Amino acid sequence: MTSETDTLIDVPTSPTSPISTDVLIIGAGPVGLFAAFEAGVVGLSCQIVDTLERIGGQCIELYPDKPIYDIPAIQSCTARELVDRLMEQCRPFNAPIHLGQRVESVEQREDGRWTVTTGQGLVFDTAAIMLAAGNGAFVPQRLAFPEATPLEGSHVHYSVQNLADFAGKTVIVAGGGDSAIDWALALRKVARRVVLVHRRNGFSAVASSVDEMRRAVDAGEMEFMVGSIASLSAPENKLASIEIRQIGGTAQIDADHLVVLYGLVADLGPIATWDLKIVGGRVDVDTSNYESSRPGIFAVGDIANYPNKQKLILSGFHEASLALRKAYTYAYPDKKRVHVHSSYDAGLAERIASGSAHQE
Amino acid sequence: MTSETDTLIDVPTSPTSPISTDVLIIGAGPVGLFAAFEAGVVGLSCQIVDTLERIGGQCIELYPDKPIYDIPAIQSCTARELVDRLMEQCRPFNAPIHLGQRVESVEQREDGRWTVTTGQGLVFDTAAIMLAAGNGAFVPQRLAFPEATPLEGSHVHYSVQNLADFAGKTVIVAGGGDSAIDWALALRKVARRVVLVHRRNGFSAVASSVDEMRRAVDAGEMEFMVGSIASLSAPENKLASIEIRQIGGTAQIDADHLVVLYGLVADLGPIATWDLKIVGGRVDVDTSNYESSRPGIFAVGDIANYPNKQKLILSGFHEASLALRKAYTYAYPDKKRVHVHSSYDAGLAERIASGSAHQE
Repeated sequence: MTSETDTLIDVPTSPTSPISTDVLIIGAGPVGLFAAFEAGVVGLSCQIVDTLERIGGQCIELYPDKPIYDIPAIQSCTARELVDRLMEQCRPFNAPIHLGQRVESVEQREDGRWTVTTGQGLVFDTAAIMLAAGNGAFVPQRLAFPEATPLEGSHVHYSVQNLADFAGKTVIVAGGGDSAIDWALALRKVARRVVLVHRRNGFSAVASSVDEMRRAVDAGEMEFMVGSIASLSAPENKLASIEIRQIGGTAQIDADHLVVLYGLVADLGPIATWDLKIVGGRVDVDTSNYESSRPGIFAVGDIANYPNKQKLILSGFHEASLALRKAYTYAYPDKKRVHVHSSYDAGLAERIASGSAHQE
Repeated sequence: MTSETDTLIDVPTSPTSPISTDVLIIGAGPVGLFAAFEAGVVGLSCQIVDTLERIGGQCIELYPDKPIYDIPAIQSCTARELVDRLMEQCRPFNAPIHLGQRVESVEQREDGRWTVTTGQGLVFDTAAIMLAAGNGAFVPQRLAFPEATPLEGSHVHYSVQNLADFAGKTVIVAGGGDSAIDWALALRKVARRVVLVHRRNGFSAVASSVDEMRRAVDAGEMEFMVGSIASLSAPENKLASIEIRQIGGTAQIDADHLVVLYGLVADLGPIATWDLKIVGGRVDVDTSNYESSRPGIFAVGDIANYPNKQKLILSGFHEASLALRKAYTYAYPDKKRVHVHSSYDAGLAERIASGSAHQE
């Protein structure tokens, strides 16, 4: 059986005109998926976007197979199973999911609706925006010193796009995980010199890669140093050398490129620039409707902040349910929404049961 | 397989001393059961009481076999299945469940803890109280006119305790459901005269009972009138006659007893006398911790009131989770609770998985 989380939803990525919807859900983790279901239940159309290339968000990225015990009425399930179940539940409403799309800008128009644009060129026209983005988008952890910033892309790299760019060069690879070791091993085949730098002689990478790296070091194909990057010397914005802090001193290595692979960290990213009230890196919301300081933009799940907020998945489910009822008033300001109970309208229930509750 | 909802938990009903606990949960419906699980997760002991004789609360009483579609990550389940699943989930913490116990009084002691007493004689000593009582306790729907009140138990009855009390009497039975028809049929065997009064010539009882009643009427064993009870005449607090409103007029019937079987309605009952702020028949709470106007008493699920409250089961789960974290501060004012994530402490998780996370 194929896991839902591995299924990419087939959605055209370059429409010629904005995609119109009632609610744009940002984040395809558990809370975003349940929000898509609840949107259908209350009678709203929705679209989902996520920066990641697969469904499931943070819990699929960080602990896909670890059991979760506190989803109500589910004694135990893995994150993968949870996401599969939520996909099954929201399927009748057919909400399109756009993966690999990072929302960059939001702009409220004069009519109150929003234009939302992704870095990959999608444009949405939506009545409301629901941030269900967990701890934000995952981005590479960057070096902490400012002199690295102007060198990004030219001499300092947080990913390797093209091995050929490093042919014949001296490359320092910093990090101790799978990415660092795998890229160091790959780079040694094209670079003049490769030095792997990690703060200790122990790695979080898989044992076979670590063994291969140690054989490569013994064979003189690459080097390994225990230490951490202390500073960069880059006269005229060209990397010249790197200072490495070691126990009892520092070492200086001439280098053309520095590849930093410290892993991913969550970051609010462009959301931080949307003029929302942010408290402790999270979006401040009103607990009666989980609306942010900008009416029409909601925040639910881990990204939401309010007094006594707990980062529980079940809290996100509740928050999304209440937020969508307020979102309805933006999508249909003149219509009175019929109250929906836990055991609601028989016609809709029948369509959900038969998997064909199409959006109108 | 026996359903959990039919299982009575074996708990001694007349302890000699108060039962001491961290949290007393009032209501053994889905939200109360999940609260018992969450109490265990955050490290609180708890006891559950319910007025009903079985677990599951309102949804088991009203729609045990109707599918519910909006429990997150459960595409469809009946109320009975939901309650079974929640019982399974909270089982590792072994919270005692006291059924058939109606909480009558709460009293806060000088040390801040509460003494809670049930009408059946149980006494609890608890740090916090969590009302998860749905729409309140189910009680018979009463006649709307005040002259009926002093006759309750002697001449006006909302249930039949002992058929022999009606031997040789004239009895009016009001109502059109199963209880009304079944009791009218039973009473005709002992009473001198039985008149069933219902507002229309159509019934919500099962067809076989309705057929039997019509045969009994045709056979002259009892009577049936379309109409509704308009007033009682009871000089010297003794029922003399009943006025029945009919289309185009009224009828007067001499009667010794009136048995009113209009079905059950939910009622806050004694909770209404606890000095809590009540809005629209529900307990007003703060959405940061679902605490009522009396610190230490929480209200979660359908009984809670706050702006934009939705009567969703999933909202109750969230409310209980937040309330318990505040309740912890009453049970352990000097202890800092360790933050618990969705995927929490491995030792506890293991005990939950093996079904043996005993309370300490």
